[in-house]
Amino acid sequence: MIRRTALITGIAGFAGSWLAEELLSEGYRVFGTFLPNESLNNIRPIQKQLSLAKLDILDTSACRKLVAAVKPDHIFHLAAIASVGRSFELEQVTFRVNFDGTLSMLEAARQHARLKSFLFIGSADSYGTFQPPTKLLTERQCFNPISPYGIAKSAAEYASRYYHRAHGLPVVIARSFNHSGPRQTDNFVIPSFAKQIAMIEAGRQKPVLMVGDLSAKRDFSDVRDIVRGYRLLAQKGKPGEVYQLCSGKAVSIQHVLDMLISISHADISVKVDKQRLRKADIPMLRGSHAKATRDANFSTRIPLRTTLMDTLAYWREKI
Amino acid sequence: MIRRTALITGIAGFAGSWLAEELLSEGYRVFGTFLPNESLNNIRPIQKQLSLAKLDILDTSACRKLVAAVKPDHIFHLAAIASVGRSFELEQVTFRVNFDGTLSMLEAARQHARLKSFLFIGSADSYGTFQPPTKLLTERQCFNPISPYGIAKSAAEYASRYYHRAHGLPVVIARSFNHSGPRQTDNFVIPSFAKQIAMIEAGRQKPVLMVGDLSAKRDFSDVRDIVRGYRLLAQKGKPGEVYQLCSGKAVSIQHVLDMLISISHADISVKVDKQRLRKADIPMLRGSHAKATRDANFSTRIPLRTTLMDTLAYWREKI
Repeated sequence: MIRRTALITGIAGFAGSWLAEELLSEGYRVFGTFLPNESLNNIRPIQKQLSLAKLDILDTSACRKLVAAVKPDHIFHLAAIASVGRSFELEQVTFRVNFDGTLSMLEAARQHARLKSFLFIGSADSYGTFQPPTKLLTERQCFNPISPYGIAKSAAEYASRYYHRAHGLPVVIARSFNHSGPRQTDNFVIPSFAKQIAMIEAGRQKPVLMVGDLSAKRDFSDVRDIVRGYRLLAQKGKPGEVYQLCSGKAVSIQHVLDMLISISHADISVKVDKQRLRKADIPMLRGSHAKATRDANFSTRIPLRTTLMDTLAYWREKI
Repeated sequence: MIRRTALITGIAGFAGSWLAEELLSEGYRVFGTFLPNESLNNIRPIQKQLSLAKLDILDTSACRKLVAAVKPDHIFHLAAIASVGRSFELEQVTFRVNFDGTLSMLEAARQHARLKSFLFIGSADSYGTFQPPTKLLTERQCFNPISPYGIAKSAAEYASRYYHRAHGLPVVIARSFNHSGPRQTDNFVIPSFAKQIAMIEAGRQKPVLMVGDLSAKRDFSDVRDIVRGYRLLAQKGKPGEVYQLCSGKAVSIQHVLDMLISISHADISVKVDKQRLRKADIPMLRGSHAKATRDANFSTRIPLRTTLMDTLAYWREKI
């Protein structure tokens, strides 16, 4: 049996580290890139099974050399500024890394003939605002991004589709909705809550949980389901096609908070922190995964409660 | 009376040079930037009335210093790779100049408090493909770009709107449809035909006109109408709003060719050159300028026949 080689950019990140485990367990040789100075904590337990290299994806020549040397069968391009919230503070970096960085990798991949798939990670945040705000989103929904993250991901997705049309690059696009789980940084809402609860339980924070807007509804999945989706799309997705990866259900941030507090034994009150209210938010995101189910047999398996329990357990251990 | 100061990036280009004349004739002080090594032929007759500086818009620090020094009331950001056709050959440059370059100018403008308007030049090419392909386009049409030019302009327009929402920058967006006239380079269809006809008339080309796809329909305006639209939008457009600038009529490239040939006295035959067929084309673009008429009193005045005659006269003189 020939083992296929996968190259993951951003392997030491949140989704990257889970994807590395998914691909190893499926028998792939896994090559990964990380930023100079980036912590490798997320991949420490599997580090010996991986081939690793430092790479700044803005260095187009380094990207080209790396792809030429690794000769991957599959590229999973995950390296990006991942937080919508942080992108408002890191506008220029987000535009550069998420758009120019994707161009670097597309160009590198184009010059490597043997590639079987290039998975680009798009985002539901590219949809921005739309009418009616409660609609069930499909891949046909057009973009109207309002965050630097969504703008950069929109542009990078347009460019990814262009590389398929113009150059025949076998690009498959995963358009991911919110996903969470252990290892996600506390720039995201679920780990932000989970970390604070763990701090309160440990007596290191007053029993007051600071929150932003609780009314927004999001379609949350477990990161382990989403990375399985990435693997399935690389294997079965049709080149040039876009696939939403999501659960099909939307829950409010309030609901997530209530579940997390119910999981904890601590007595916790909640306080709104105006600093945490985002400049321009999208009221609701809920997607259909029918296309990913049809073409790649994707669906989510892990209930939200499990995601929340595992995330809280991760932060209890970390603190 | 206080004279207002206008800064035009790309002043020596096709639309830039006409806009400079328009603004001078309306009493503005006009400051313009051009690329190192760029020809100043287009602005030679008015050069003494202009203040000029070399600027590479990818140099963010130079953009910031220039805006801080000029202290313009109005910025007209025209510097860009302007040809959809060329953008397929200049992918990376188009992405960089048209997107990153716009970010440079937006950032520079944001740091300059006195600005009254920042005109960003978007494009109907951002619409890409849509259904039905004959529809009359409005500003509400969503983007689905298929050329590097359209992708970069889409991303830059998203970023321009973001700078208005997030930073209060008084951005007004002109979404231009095709426009032509004297001084346009022969990467565009009308000057390409006009130049060949002038060459044939002068006996410097066999009487065979080489053409690409003639079936596509476009909404052509005269550049002098479009730059008047730019001036009107800078004066009267609402910050954060998008305005289509177009004639409201679409004609086929075949029709343009027939008119041009009828203007010439030469006996000309036509031959399709496969090299000139674009990889992925949009069958028809036709827009409504109702919003620009309502808010800024814009409409086109110059008939297509005049544009074609003047363009042909320009090439006859040049050859």
